[in-house]
Amino acid sequence: MAAAASNSTPSTFTVPVNKTAHEFDKVQLDATLSRRFFFAPAFEIYGAGVAGLYDYGPPGSALQANILDAWRKHYIIEEDMLELDTTIMTLDEVLKTSGHVDKFADWMVKDVQNGHIFRADHLVEAVLEARLKGDKEARGVAEQPKAEEEADKKKKKKKAVKSDAIKLDDEVVAEYENILAQIDNYTGPQLGELARKYNIRNPETGNEVTEPVEFNLMFSSTIGPTGTLKGQGYSYLLSQYLRPETAQGHFVNFARLLEFNNGRVPFASAQIGRSFRNEIAPRQGLLRVREFTMAEIEHYVDPLDKRHARFAEVKDVTLSLLPKEVQESGKTDLVQMTVGDAVSKKIVDNETLGYFLARTQLFLTKIGINPTRLRCRQHMGNEMAHYASDCWDFEIQSSYGWIECVGCADRSAYDLTVHSNKTKQPLRVQERLETPRSVEKLDCQFDAKAFGMKFKKDATTIKETLLGLEKDQLQIIMDELESKGTSEVKCADGKTYEITADLVKIQPITVTEYAVREFTPNVIEPSFGIGRILYSLLEHSFWAREQDKNRIVLSLPAAVAPIKCLIVTISQNPDLRTLIQDISRKMRRLGVASRVDDSSVSIGKKYARNDELGTPFGCTIDFASLQKGTMTLRERDSTAQLIGPIDTVISVVDELVKGTLDWEGASAQLESYSGVQDVE
Amino acid sequence: MAAAASNSTPSTFTVPVNKTAHEFDKVQLDATLSRRFFFAPAFEIYGAGVAGLYDYGPPGSALQANILDAWRKHYIIEEDMLELDTTIMTLDEVLKTSGHVDKFADWMVKDVQNGHIFRADHLVEAVLEARLKGDKEARGVAEQPKAEEEADKKKKKKKAVKSDAIKLDDEVVAEYENILAQIDNYTGPQLGELARKYNIRNPETGNEVTEPVEFNLMFSSTIGPTGTLKGQGYSYLLSQYLRPETAQGHFVNFARLLEFNNGRVPFASAQIGRSFRNEIAPRQGLLRVREFTMAEIEHYVDPLDKRHARFAEVKDVTLSLLPKEVQESGKTDLVQMTVGDAVSKKIVDNETLGYFLARTQLFLTKIGINPTRLRCRQHMGNEMAHYASDCWDFEIQSSYGWIECVGCADRSAYDLTVHSNKTKQPLRVQERLETPRSVEKLDCQFDAKAFGMKFKKDATTIKETLLGLEKDQLQIIMDELESKGTSEVKCADGKTYEITADLVKIQPITVTEYAVREFTPNVIEPSFGIGRILYSLLEHSFWAREQDKNRIVLSLPAAVAPIKCLIVTISQNPDLRTLIQDISRKMRRLGVASRVDDSSVSIGKKYARNDELGTPFGCTIDFASLQKGTMTLRERDSTAQLIGPIDTVISVVDELVKGTLDWEGASAQLESYSGVQDVE
Repeated sequence: MAAAASNSTPSTFTVPVNKTAHEFDKVQLDATLSRRFFFAPAFEIYGAGVAGLYDYGPPGSALQANILDAWRKHYIIEEDMLELDTTIMTLDEVLKTSGHVDKFADWMVKDVQNGHIFRADHLVEAVLEARLKGDKEARGVAEQPKAEEEADKKKKKKKAVKSDAIKLDDEVVAEYENILAQIDNYTGPQLGELARKYNIRNPETGNEVTEPVEFNLMFSSTIGPTGTLKGQGYSYLLSQYLRPETAQGHFVNFARLLEFNNGRVPFASAQIGRSFRNEIAPRQGLLRVREFTMAEIEHYVDPLDKRHARFAEVKDVTLSLLPKEVQESGKTDLVQMTVGDAVSKKIVDNETLGYFLARTQLFLTKIGINPTRLRCRQHMGNEMAHYASDCWDFEIQSSYGWIECVGCADRSAYDLTVHSNKTKQPLRVQERLETPRSVEKLDCQFDAKAFGMKFKKDATTIKETLLGLEKDQLQIIMDELESKGTSEVKCADGKTYEITADLVKIQPITVTEYAVREFTPNVIEPSFGIGRILYSLLEHSFWAREQDKNRIVLSLPAAVAPIKCLIVTISQNPDLRTLIQDISRKMRRLGVASRVDDSSVSIGKKYARNDELGTPFGCTIDFASLQKGTMTLRERDSTAQLIGPIDTVISVVDELVKGTLDWEGASAQLESYSGVQDVE
Repeated sequence: MAAAASNSTPSTFTVPVNKTAHEFDKVQLDATLSRRFFFAPAFEIYGAGVAGLYDYGPPGSALQANILDAWRKHYIIEEDMLELDTTIMTLDEVLKTSGHVDKFADWMVKDVQNGHIFRADHLVEAVLEARLKGDKEARGVAEQPKAEEEADKKKKKKKAVKSDAIKLDDEVVAEYENILAQIDNYTGPQLGELARKYNIRNPETGNEVTEPVEFNLMFSSTIGPTGTLKGQGYSYLLSQYLRPETAQGHFVNFARLLEFNNGRVPFASAQIGRSFRNEIAPRQGLLRVREFTMAEIEHYVDPLDKRHARFAEVKDVTLSLLPKEVQESGKTDLVQMTVGDAVSKKIVDNETLGYFLARTQLFLTKIGINPTRLRCRQHMGNEMAHYASDCWDFEIQSSYGWIECVGCADRSAYDLTVHSNKTKQPLRVQERLETPRSVEKLDCQFDAKAFGMKFKKDATTIKETLLGLEKDQLQIIMDELESKGTSEVKCADGKTYEITADLVKIQPITVTEYAVREFTPNVIEPSFGIGRILYSLLEHSFWAREQDKNRIVLSLPAAVAPIKCLIVTISQNPDLRTLIQDISRKMRRLGVASRVDDSSVSIGKKYARNDELGTPFGCTIDFASLQKGTMTLRERDSTAQLIGPIDTVISVVDELVKGTLDWEGASAQLESYSGVQDVE
C-alpha cells in the first residue's frame, strides 16, 4: 500500500482483535482498569469523587503519553506542522467572537419540585426509549441489554430509566422511533414541546419539568484581584473562560504563524492540550468528561485550491464511510471505498479533507484500534455548522455504541474572518501571482526645471493631478499636446492651468506587473479526543485466555504499550539479581521502557500481571544465563518463547519495540524455546 | 565523574557560555524571541493581551517539549518513577485540607482614591528602593541600571518608580536597607505598619493606600449546571479551584500508588502539567505568569531511613551552595562543595534530598544552563514551612537577578497526614519486619459438642469472652481448671458461667509473629518551573557574533534545540530539490527534527536565520552532491564545516544529535571543508 511509505515508523504488527473465547465483560474490564490504576475518579478518597473528572495512574499516563508521542510523530514531525502551546485561560472577548459564549450550550430542564436537573435531549430520549422497551416487553419481544445497563445491573446500580411493560399503539411506536432517530436535531423549544406533548416527567419522582433553558458549557473565572474586592470593577478584572477546545489559540496566532511560514499557505498548526466542558450530567466514564486532553490540527489552505501535495500517497487507503445520504434515508450501511474514489466521486468534498481522513484511519489502526469497529460518519446537512462545507466524524464502536472520537471538518474561512473583523487585524494571505501581465500605460515626463519656473508653488499640485488622472483623461491631454502643443489641467483647487508640450511629454509605455491576490485561507480541522480514543483502544485490546476467564490480556501494540518489556529472574540468587540490573540498564540506554519484577511470586504470575498491563515482551534469566549467557524472550499474545545470547535478545527486543522487526523476524534470529521456567 | 554513569544519554557537549564580545542586550533578546515567535502575549490581536499569559509559538513549543522530554528521561525513565496525570480542577475540600484555601495568598493594598491595586511587599520595596536611589543621586553616587529598567527605558516605557534626587539621613538609609534585606519576612499587618510609618503612597497619584488585605492566589470556578441557575444550590454545584501546583494530585492518589508499587517505599510519583496562580500584578515576562507548566516529583521515604540506594553515583557532583547560616549573617558568598560532603557535614539534611540536588544540578547543566550562574539557596528558618525539615531552591541568574526555578523540599509527613486525617483513609505504609519474634500465648481448645450441649444459646458468648481475655486473666482460669477442675467466666451480659476442665482445655503455646511496623512516609519534593528554566536557558544561550552585533546565535544544546538540522541547497535546480527531499525523508526516519529551507535567500542568510533559532547543524548540497554524492555539514557555534558522502553525513548528524558523538568525533569521520557556497 502506497500509504505505508508516508509513515515514519513502519508498522509490522497486525492490529489486535479480541481473541477471546469469552464474551466481552464490561464489569471485568472496569475492575481490571481500576485495580491496575489505569485511571480512577479524581479525589476518590474524598468520597465518591467528582463526576466527569478522572486521574490517570502510571499505566494510563504512559499509554496516553505513548499515544500522544505516536500522534506527534505521525502528524507534526511527518508533516512539518507548526506546533503551538497556548493558554487554557481564554479572554471572553475571543470566545464571544468565535460564537462560544452565545452558542456553546446544551438545553436543560429541571424537576419543578426537587430541582433535579436533566439534559433535555437525554431526558426525552431516555423516557421514550423506556416506553418503547416497555412496549416490547408487553408484546413479549426480548431485547439484548446494552453493555452499560448490564454493567450497572451487576454492580447493583440501576441507572437506566425503569420501563413498565405497557403496550403502545402502533402509530405511537412509529412516532417515538421517528423522534429518537433525529433526537440530535431538535432545538430547545422543540424539546419543550415534545415534553408537553408526550407528558415527559422526571422518571424518579413523576414530577413535571420546566421549559428547557440554555446552559453554557464553559467554565468561567476571573483574572486579577477579585476575592474580597469582588464586584468593584477595576480595569484589572478580566472575565475569562477555560477553553472548550484548543482551536481558538491557533486562530488568534494566525498572523504570527503565517509570518513564521514565510507568508505562504498551505501549512498546518498543531496543538496538544487540556480543554474543559461543564457537562450537565457526565456519564460513560472517560467518554464524557469535564476535563480532557485534545490534539488539534488547523490546516490552512487556499480556498480556490484544496488539492494536497501528498494525496497520491494515501489515495488507496480504504475507509468505511457512512455518507449523509445513507443516513438521511434512515440507514446505517457502511460503504467501503478508497479515499481516492471518495474524493473523485465528490462524496468527500476535497483532496485535503480526504488526505486527513486517510491519515487518521492509518493513525488509529496503527495504535491498535480495530478497523472493523471504526467508521467515518458524515454530518448531515442540518447537523453541520452553517459555515462548514463538509464534516466527517471517526466513530469507534465500543460497549457504549458508536462514539465520535475524531472530527474532521472543513471550517471554510469562518474562524479567521470573524477574528479579523472583530480585531481589524488582517488575517489574510498575500499571494504574488506567478505570471506577470503586461499593462499599457501613459507615462508623464516633466521638464522639472522649466515646469517649476513656470508654475512656482502650484507646480506640485499640477504634477500630482496629472499623475493621478485616469488613462482615458490623460489620453485626451496627450492628444491635445500632440495636435495643438497645449492643453489644460483642472486641479482640485478649482483652478485650471495651461500646460505646453515642452514642459510635459506624455507617451505610451508597456509595464510588467506582478499582481497580488489577497485571500482568507480556509481551515481543515482534524480534532482528536485523546481520552475517548484511549478508552476505545482499551476495550478493543481486552480479552481473556481461553483456558481461564480471569487470565486477562491487553493486546496493545508495542508502540503504545505502557511498558515494553518485563524482566524477571527464576530465583533470588544474588548473581542473577546483579545480571538483571545490568540487563535493565542496557534496555534503558536503548530507550526501551522496561520493568524488573523481583517480587517473590511465580514467574507465571509475573507474566499474568504484565499481560494485564499490555506488556508485549518478557525476558527471563535463569542459571543457564550465568553459565551460557542466554536469555529467553516471550511474546504476550501467543505466549511463544525464543532463546538466544543476552545481548542479541536485547537488540531483538529493541527492534521489536521500534517496529523494525516482527515476531517472525525475531524467530529467525533466535531459537525456539520450550523450557521449564515458564510455569504458567 | 561517577555521576555521568547515571545519565541515560551521555552528554558530549560542553555547556554553552555566552561567547559574545558584545554586552548582553535584553531589548535585542526580547525582539528576537518575539520576531521568531518563541513566545508572545496571549490574545495579542485583541489589544495588549492579558498580563501574565503567554502563548508558545513553534520554536518555543518545541524547546519546551524537548526540555520536558529530557526531564522525563532523566527522572521518570531513569528512576522508574510512577507517572501520573491528574486533573487541573481541584475540589475545594482538597485544597482546604492542604492549607491552600487559607494560606495561599499575597497581601495587597489599594489606592484609596482610584482603586489601583498593588502587592503590598512590592509597593514598600519599590518606594523604599526609589528613595534610596534618589539619595544616591543626591550624593552623586552613580548606579548601574537593572537590565529590566534599561529595557523599559529603551522601549520608552518607564515602569519603575520615579526617584527624586533627595538626600536621606544616614540612619534612615540604614533602616531602609535593613527592611529591604528581609522584605520577604513581613506579615500583612507589618507591611501596613511600614506603610504608615514611612508614609508609603501610590507613587503615581500620591494618594494613601489601604491597610493590606489578603488576596488568595487561586482561580475559582464551579462545576455543574450553574449559569442562569446560579445560587440555587443544587447538590450538583461543586466549588473548585484550578490547581496552584500538581502536588495534591499525587497525595490524594497515594494509596493507589503504594498498592501499584506492591506496598513498598521508597518510590516516587512524577507529573508534568499546567498550574495556575492569580498573580496580583504579573511582570518579568515568563518568570511570573498566571498559567504555567510544572514538573513535580514526590518521593516517598521511610522517615527513619532517608538514605538513597544510588547516592554513591552522585556524591562527587559539586554544588554552589548558599546555606542559611551564610544568608542569616547578611552575606551571599557561595560555598563550592560536593553533595557527599554537604550531606556528611549535615549542611544538607539527608541523602535522598542530597541525591535530588545532585541530579537536578546534572539535569539543568545538561540542558544548557550555565553552571556559573546556578546556585542552591537554602531556605532560612522563618522562610520555611513549619513542617518542612529542609528546603533548597535552585536559583538561576538572569537579567532579572537570581530567580527560583526549582525547589527541593523535605516536606516531612505533613501532606499525607492532613489528607489522611481529613478523609479517615489510611495513607500509611505497613512494613513487615524481617526478623520474626516468638510469642508465648495461651490457647483455648473447646469440646465443641459438649460445650454446645451444656450452654446452648449462651455457648457462643462464653467462647468469645474466653478468646477475648487478656493473657493474665486467662492464666487465672487455666490455673483454677488445673487445680480445681472448674472455674468461672463473667460475660458481657452480666451473668457468670461455670466451666469445667472437660469442656475447655487451656494450654501455653509458642507462636511465631512477623511484627508489622506502620508509618506515614515522608515526602521529598523536587518541583520545577519549566517556563522559568526555559527563559533562563534562552538568556544563557543568547549571544551575537563578534563581527556583527545583529548576527544572533542561540547556543542551545542539540538535545533541546527546536530543530536539529537545517537542510539547504545552493540552487533551485530540480535535481537538487529532489535530492533534498530525499535527505529530509532519511533524517525524518531517523527521528532527527530537520527543516528544509528552499526559499530564495542566500545560504548565509539561511544559516543566520537558523542560528537565531538555535539549530545546531546545517547540511548543504550543491552540484558536487549530484556528481560526487557529497554533502557539507556546518556547526552553529564555530561555523566550522566538514564534508563527506551524503549517507555518512546523515548518520554523523544522527549521532551528534543523540549525543553519542561530539564535533571532534565528527571531524575524525569527515573531511574538513572550506568551500565557496558558505557565503557568510
